[in-house]
Amino acid sequence: MTYCVGMKLDSGLVFMSDTRTNAGLDNIATYKKMYDWVVPDERVITLLSSGNLATTQSVVSQLQEQTRSAPAKSSTILNVSSMFKVAEIIGRALRKVIQDNAVGGPSASSSFNASFILGGQIRDEAPSLFLIYPEGNFIEAGPSAPYLQIGEIKYGRPILVRGFDSTLSFAEALRLLLVSFDSTIKANLTVGLPLHYYCYSNDSFHQGQTGQIRFDDEYFKHISETWGASLKSALEALPGFPLE
Amino acid sequence: MTYCVGMKLDSGLVFMSDTRTNAGLDNIATYKKMYDWVVPDERVITLLSSGNLATTQSVVSQLQEQTRSAPAKSSTILNVSSMFKVAEIIGRALRKVIQDNAVGGPSASSSFNASFILGGQIRDEAPSLFLIYPEGNFIEAGPSAPYLQIGEIKYGRPILVRGFDSTLSFAEALRLLLVSFDSTIKANLTVGLPLHYYCYSNDSFHQGQTGQIRFDDEYFKHISETWGASLKSALEALPGFPLE
Repeated sequence: MTYCVGMKLDSGLVFMSDTRTNAGLDNIATYKKMYDWVVPDERVITLLSSGNLATTQSVVSQLQEQTRSAPAKSSTILNVSSMFKVAEIIGRALRKVIQDNAVGGPSASSSFNASFILGGQIRDEAPSLFLIYPEGNFIEAGPSAPYLQIGEIKYGRPILVRGFDSTLSFAEALRLLLVSFDSTIKANLTVGLPLHYYCYSNDSFHQGQTGQIRFDDEYFKHISETWGASLKSALEALPGFPLE
Repeated sequence: MTYCVGMKLDSGLVFMSDTRTNAGLDNIATYKKMYDWVVPDERVITLLSSGNLATTQSVVSQLQEQTRSAPAKSSTILNVSSMFKVAEIIGRALRKVIQDNAVGGPSASSSFNASFILGGQIRDEAPSLFLIYPEGNFIEAGPSAPYLQIGEIKYGRPILVRGFDSTLSFAEALRLLLVSFDSTIKANLTVGLPLHYYCYSNDSFHQGQTGQIRFDDEYFKHISETWGASLKSALEALPGFPLE
C-alpha cells in the first residue's frame, strides 16, 4: 500500500508521499514515490505513485527515457504545451505497461495496477493537479475537490475534509498533511516513514522546497505525540451526550 | 455498507449502529441493525449486524425462532451458560446461512457475507464483546483491543484510536462515537442516519439505555457542525512545520 496526497492551495501546490513498499507482509522496503522534472523558467512537474512498484518504475523510466532520447518532434512531458497533455502521455504509458504485463507470460497473484498524482505548471498556464487511473484516464482537481489522494486514503481523509482550506500556507498545509499521514501510519502497516514533501509556489517555474521526514524527525514526533492529547481536549470541549 | 461499533468500558458496554442499507447505488433503505434480547436478572445480549441484509435477517430470525420453539434441552442463545457459547450459536447460524445461499441456485453479483458484533453478560460471568466473522469463528475484545468495528471501519477509526479510554462515561463514549460516525457518514454515502445506541451497565442484567439519533437530532447537528471548528483549532494549536 501507499499513501500520497496532492493539494492545490491559493499559493501553490503541496505534495506528500510515504516510502513503504511491500511484496507480501514479510518483504518490506523503502522506495521514494515522488519524482520531479524541472525546465527552469518554463515548467515544473511532480509525480506521486501508488500501486505495483514494477509498474510505476517502468512508467517513470519510460518518461525519463523519452525526455533524453526521443526522436525530434515527438511529444514528451518536457515539450508538450499543457499539463493536460503531460497527463495524457503518462496515462498512455501507464495503461500500456499494465496491459503488457497482464497479457501473455506468467500471471501474478497481485495486480499490476498503479495510479499517479500529477501536478505542476507550464508557462502561460495556471498550475494544475491530476489523478491518473490505471486505465490511463484522469481527473483534475478543482475548487470543489482541491486535494487528491491515492493509496490508503480512508484513515487520513476525515482530517483533510475538516482541516483543508485553500488559504493555508505551505507550513500549515504540511502540518495538516503530517496529521493525516500520522493517522494513516498508525492504522495501516503498509504505509510508513520516511515521508517526502514538495511545495511549489505558483508562477515560480523553479523547483520548489522539498525534503524528507525521517524516523527521528523531532517535529513529526512532536505532532504525533501531541495530536492525541489535542483531539482529547477537542472532544472534551464538546457538550456530553444528553443521556436521560 | 454499514458502520457499527461495540465498546467495552470499565462501567459497561456501549453499542452504536447506522441504518443505511443499499442494494446498488439507486436502491437505499433504512433498517435497524441492532437487536437485543433480555432475560431479566439473568442475561442481556446485544447484536449488531453488517453485510448482506438477507443473510443477517435470516440469522436473526433463526435465533428468535429457536428461542421460541426449539425442542426442550436444545441450546439457544437464551439458555446456554456463557457468552462464548452464544457466539458459537450465532457463528454456526451465520456460516450455515451463507453456505446455503452460495451453494446451488442462481448466483448473485454481490456476496452473501455478513459479520456481527455481539456483546452482553450472563449471570456469574463478566460482560464480554465479540466480533463474529462470516466463516462463523470469532474474536473477543480485551484490554488491548477494547472496541470492535464492522462495516466501513476506516474513516472513523483514527478518532477512536486517539479518543478511547476505558474510563469514559456512557455520555462521553456516545459523544466519541458520534464524532466517529459523523466522519464516516461525511465520507461514505452507504453509511447514514438515523443511528441507534445502546448502553449496558455491568452487572445490571436489565435492558440498558437505548435510543435513536434521527436526522433532526439537535445534539448530533451541533457535534457535526462544531467538530470541524474544534479540529481546526486543535490543528492551529500545533506548531507550524519548520520550513526553511
